[in-house]
Amino acid sequence: MSAKLLNIGLVGCGFMGRTHSNAFAQVNRFFDLPYRPVLRAVCARDAAKVAAFAAQWGYASTETDWRKLVERPDIEVVDIASPNDTHAPIAIAAAAAGKMVLCEKPLGRHAAESARMVEAVEKAGVPNMVWYNYRRVPAVALAKQLIDEGRLGRIFHYRAKFLQDWTIAADLPQGGPGLWRLDVHVAGSGVTGDLLAHCIDTALWLNGPIDRVAAMTETFVKERPHALTGRVEAVGIDDASAFLARFRNGSLATFEATRYARGHKALYTLEINGEHASIAWDLHDLHRLAWFDHRDEGRLRGWRSIHVTDGDHPYMKHWWVPGLQIGYEHTFIHQAADFLAGLAEGHVPGPSFRDAMATDYVTDAVLRSARAGSWEQVPPLPS
Amino acid sequence: MSAKLLNIGLVGCGFMGRTHSNAFAQVNRFFDLPYRPVLRAVCARDAAKVAAFAAQWGYASTETDWRKLVERPDIEVVDIASPNDTHAPIAIAAAAAGKMVLCEKPLGRHAAESARMVEAVEKAGVPNMVWYNYRRVPAVALAKQLIDEGRLGRIFHYRAKFLQDWTIAADLPQGGPGLWRLDVHVAGSGVTGDLLAHCIDTALWLNGPIDRVAAMTETFVKERPHALTGRVEAVGIDDASAFLARFRNGSLATFEATRYARGHKALYTLEINGEHASIAWDLHDLHRLAWFDHRDEGRLRGWRSIHVTDGDHPYMKHWWVPGLQIGYEHTFIHQAADFLAGLAEGHVPGPSFRDAMATDYVTDAVLRSARAGSWEQVPPLPS
Amino acid sequence: MSAKLLNIGLVGCGFMGRTHSNAFAQVNRFFDLPYRPVLRAVCARDAAKVAAFAAQWGYASTETDWRKLVERPDIEVVDIASPNDTHAPIAIAAAAAGKMVLCEKPLGRHAAESARMVEAVEKAGVPNMVWYNYRRVPAVALAKQLIDEGRLGRIFHYRAKFLQDWTIAADLPQGGPGLWRLDVHVAGSGVTGDLLAHCIDTALWLNGPIDRVAAMTETFVKERPHALTGRVEAVGIDDASAFLARFRNGSLATFEATRYARGHKALYTLEINGEHASIAWDLHDLHRLAWFDHRDEGRLRGWRSIHVTDGDHPYMKHWWVPGLQIGYEHTFIHQAADFLAGLAEGHVPGPSFRDAMATDYVTDAVLRSARAGSWEQVPPLPS
Amino acid sequence: MSAKLLNIGLVGCGFMGRTHSNAFAQVNRFFDLPYRPVLRAVCARDAAKVAAFAAQWGYASTETDWRKLVERPDIEVVDIASPNDTHAPIAIAAAAAGKMVLCEKPLGRHAAESARMVEAVEKAGVPNMVWYNYRRVPAVALAKQLIDEGRLGRIFHYRAKFLQDWTIAADLPQGGPGLWRLDVHVAGSGVTGDLLAHCIDTALWLNGPIDRVAAMTETFVKERPHALTGRVEAVGIDDASAFLARFRNGSLATFEATRYARGHKALYTLEINGEHASIAWDLHDLHRLAWFDHRDEGRLRGWRSIHVTDGDHPYMKHWWVPGLQIGYEHTFIHQAADFLAGLAEGHVPGPSFRDAMATDYVTDAVLRSARAGSWEQVPPLPS
Repeated sequence: MSAKLLNIGLVGCGFMGRTHSNAFAQVNRFFDLPYRPVLRAVCARDAAKVAAFAAQWGYASTETDWRKLVERPDIEVVDIASPNDTHAPIAIAAAAAGKMVLCEKPLGRHAAESARMVEAVEKAGVPNMVWYNYRRVPAVALAKQLIDEGRLGRIFHYRAKFLQDWTIAADLPQGGPGLWRLDVHVAGSGVTGDLLAHCIDTALWLNGPIDRVAAMTETFVKERPHALTGRVEAVGIDDASAFLARFRNGSLATFEATRYARGHKALYTLEINGEHASIAWDLHDLHRLAWFDHRDEGRLRGWRSIHVTDGDHPYMKHWWVPGLQIGYEHTFIHQAADFLAGLAEGHVPGPSFRDAMATDYVTDAVLRSARAGSWEQVPPLPS
Repeated sequence: MSAKLLNIGLVGCGFMGRTHSNAFAQVNRFFDLPYRPVLRAVCARDAAKVAAFAAQWGYASTETDWRKLVERPDIEVVDIASPNDTHAPIAIAAAAAGKMVLCEKPLGRHAAESARMVEAVEKAGVPNMVWYNYRRVPAVALAKQLIDEGRLGRIFHYRAKFLQDWTIAADLPQGGPGLWRLDVHVAGSGVTGDLLAHCIDTALWLNGPIDRVAAMTETFVKERPHALTGRVEAVGIDDASAFLARFRNGSLATFEATRYARGHKALYTLEINGEHASIAWDLHDLHRLAWFDHRDEGRLRGWRSIHVTDGDHPYMKHWWVPGLQIGYEHTFIHQAADFLAGLAEGHVPGPSFRDAMATDYVTDAVLRSARAGSWEQVPPLPS
Repeated sequence: MSAKLLNIGLVGCGFMGRTHSNAFAQVNRFFDLPYRPVLRAVCARDAAKVAAFAAQWGYASTETDWRKLVERPDIEVVDIASPNDTHAPIAIAAAAAGKMVLCEKPLGRHAAESARMVEAVEKAGVPNMVWYNYRRVPAVALAKQLIDEGRLGRIFHYRAKFLQDWTIAADLPQGGPGLWRLDVHVAGSGVTGDLLAHCIDTALWLNGPIDRVAAMTETFVKERPHALTGRVEAVGIDDASAFLARFRNGSLATFEATRYARGHKALYTLEINGEHASIAWDLHDLHRLAWFDHRDEGRLRGWRSIHVTDGDHPYMKHWWVPGLQIGYEHTFIHQAADFLAGLAEGHVPGPSFRDAMATDYVTDAVLRSARAGSWEQVPPLPS
Repeated sequence: MSAKLLNIGLVGCGFMGRTHSNAFAQVNRFFDLPYRPVLRAVCARDAAKVAAFAAQWGYASTETDWRKLVERPDIEVVDIASPNDTHAPIAIAAAAAGKMVLCEKPLGRHAAESARMVEAVEKAGVPNMVWYNYRRVPAVALAKQLIDEGRLGRIFHYRAKFLQDWTIAADLPQGGPGLWRLDVHVAGSGVTGDLLAHCIDTALWLNGPIDRVAAMTETFVKERPHALTGRVEAVGIDDASAFLARFRNGSLATFEATRYARGHKALYTLEINGEHASIAWDLHDLHRLAWFDHRDEGRLRGWRSIHVTDGDHPYMKHWWVPGLQIGYEHTFIHQAADFLAGLAEGHVPGPSFRDAMATDYVTDAVLRSARAGSWEQVPPLPS
């Protein structure tokens, strides 16, 4: 297929800047697509750093002020991979400039910020998408297929957790390079917006809307040196967050995220129990899906460990041969592929900014509930 | 060791009657103990059934009215393995008659009932114990050792669930033989008192008191035929129950139990995350303990799967050789061994009736929270 | 069922004496059987030890000379659980005395010894059985059902190994209490007769006769102090043994056993690959069977982990409830149950002495091949 | 680092052509290297196919005759990813033309062919390397570190297998696109050269030279339609191959490969048992290493599952963050990185052509042994 070029301007050259750049660089090698991304410009405040990044990834030019990037006529897509507090201003300006806007998750720091972003892209009528990448893990996409086919029957339970252990050391500073996730002003919240947001996005996608939640949060290390001020300051983020939930479909759920679960690096697990069948998945072995089907012959019922690497599994025909696994970064490549394919067909695939705002409605309700000690309703998305 | 005889009178000849009888029959074959239980009498309402049970297990006599059993001068220990609604009257009468009292869990149907039982045994000054058997799984006992040695450091998280799937069929009756756990009048509650009670007992033992909880419960199948009346009646038990908790030591917890988790037969799992190390365990492979120690050399850190079958593991020197696992019923044998050994030393090992009442305080708070939609304090045990 | 009494005379009160005694003591509590074993006498050379054993297990009397035991008219079954070099003389004498004979595995130290034992019991026409207990693991028995139902189709591969690590220490003595397995004169061979014999018995049962083998063996520690002589002596046993095999059904196999596989306590694993389906099992989690069925829907194919604890699984309706596992010693209880049931029906279940001799034909061929460096035929059993 | 350009000419645009191309395209994005590969030309017989491949991967030009490619002065490195029967002529011509030569494994179809290739590159003095990619799985590289540090002590056992199930269908043709591995004239042998070669290369690297082997092979499906002739023809390859081996260090080994192990897609597993510690690995979860250390405290010994995704694990600092796994193709990227780094330092990393010939010596001995039914010596590499 002869592909049209699509000019990308990336903001941010940290961890997520790398995953997005890799997705743009790799996607046409493995997917036959109507568009081919061109790495036109990358923007970050540190000129030396952004120059090195551009050289490494093949960006044609650099900027150190995102306002410049947004205004450039040669940029068609603004892709935001900078810290959370910058998402809203960049996205709103980009939409105003008529650019397509891609944004790293979470959308805004809170739903109010997200609402302005949604308004901006919808008013401008520009394609928009949020990088909740775990929807594009082949095993998770297979789970979605099975649920959509009605194979689980009535859903009774949903269970998700995202456990890490990297902030247990009390002398880890808040803020600064690589550590802005510990600074509440930049991040918006702690694990609720960072890790639970992933769990919630997947859950809404797989199991529909959440009605109400009851939550608790905790900050285990109350004070940390701040990288920018040099002073020991109160920590504003939540180190751990857990909540009970009721979905609109009647199912019950437990969610939990923490950065204090010793032994877990990035253990995002989910499980769904339906009347007829159950599904479980674990990011630490992301190429496997656990599947239990009660309709199997009685003596032989058991959880199947499906090695999701066959040609008839989602996305996998584009990769290698059965048994050979792919990794984390491929989820971004898949999302880029879906975006580019959808663009040509006139419907950009989710999660849109609006979809991502639904997650923020839940995380806001979680934080509200944790403060108030009460069940909190999750409002429906405005139409 | 020459063992003194100890005359047992058992009430109940169902599932738990079998596990207790087996414990008494086996314990002296594997443990060198100062006492040897004698199966003096077994009691159940159905004369034919109790006679068959007595023959199979070698009980010397039978009764069909527990009041008779309790009054018999040849009975030293009354062991209660009948449905929950009978625990209190039997235990109170047995204590009044000066018998030692062993009781299947949960103690009473609610804390109020339990309080009367505690008062009875403590006033009578009789040895008493509740069969929360999972404390005597070797892997769980090993976890207790590690925690008591301080190896985990400050505790951040506790996580437990008990998942089953045997009541999903909507035509399963409530009440009647084998199904009294579905009848709220007999059972007191549903999974909260049946399954969560196990999780809570272990948690209090391993991680100390719980301060407060926020819970939700659900009855998925609202009406079921009642085995005794023959009529379709409202179901009074909770089919599923989940709660958030804060322990007095500052750690956060999630607990969940259900009989609607397709694919899980009796999946009791627990996990504890401490500053230095973490522990996880799963009843479906009860002879294994998962252990992660952050103090291990960095490159080589990983969860260890300890096959808890060595001579230096709790209880295991009494069994076979390394690598050869034991099963479920052995937990009761271990508890019987500890009881008989403790009796001679003048301190009966826990959980005592009072210890078990602490669990009822938590389950009561869980049910109260689920009704009220609020956080509920767990009162401290009265002294 | 009213059971006839069956008088047992046990020889040996070590590890296997305990497992057999437990089987006889427990079997009627869990199985409804036409016979009830009576622990009439136990025999061992050490009078004090045998007296303690008799007291612990409830044997009515003791002997210190097996010849006496064999001659006693009150003994109906002679059960041999003493070291390998005593199997033949005891079994032959017992058969000559008209006793039923049960024998711990392996049958003889070599096939020639076994042949005399087979001849003895067959000439005497007495019921006989060898305790290859792993056939009675529920998961292995389920595998047998599936194979017999033809579900695997044509068999391509069989794979078994039995790995231990308890003799790595070079200062471990050979011979003496608990260590006679290291003394070639007593044991006959090392891991070939001890561990591979188990693998081979199961394999012949599941997959039919073996045609020929190519083997290697090794003695890693060449000299060890001998417990009886006090002198350092050459070690005569094989520490490790592995062989290639071709089954008569055309399938290929690898077998391996060792006591030098660090990290494995008693890792007996087996796997069978058929045209349509595959099976795998592991003694370290003996209640699980792994099952892969290629006829499952493509996207959902995966290895199932079957928790073999349901009422419709072999033997399991006699135990607890789904999800609650049994242990190692239950395999002996199952074998005792099958023996007692078969006795009444006039056909004693296998493995008979003759069946066990087939295993010795293979182990002999393995040792022969290892010495000669050539493929060796396994002779067919004489009719 | 400012990187020198290195002009690559690739032969073959199948599965391996893709993995090599991806390695060249990705390597400089993740590794800071002295060389940057330039995709100068790709060669395949089918002009349309090679043109499409060039477009997809960004090759600057195409060829349909490898002789042309080899002669082109703008090509510095000839990379061979075409079927096995073409390896020798291309490599020999490329070496004669003074090119660096990279070759997909196995080197030649037999050691004799490989010997001519080794002679060619060594005589020409050109850098050379064979793509035995599994050495560059981070978990396998970590195993190598541990072994080199002497942590396992004396080695007793090595165990490897590579199980697949994709050729069970009897109507699968031999030869033709994607199926040349079934045609003995093209492939040289079946699973011995294809799958066992991988196992052997890793084994020689981790555990040193193999002294002698005893093997068996089987062709389960004896005749298959040939894609080129259209006729049913005898199958010349081995469908399954297993062997016993003795390493020069005194350890014993079993090796097995097959394409008839139902349920396994690409199950390459290896295990090493040493005096102090053991290691196991499995390609199906390639980011995990199993590690058992007997020097751990007794009660807490267990197999550790190391999630090899931390910055201090081999290669992993170049990728994402702890807990996020990489996939199959990354092994080729790592090998390309090592090659480019080594080139600048004047020592090209292994496996060289000579190293790969050592593997062919073993596979030749395996096939010889299977034919002869005898133990076969593996000759030492000529100096």
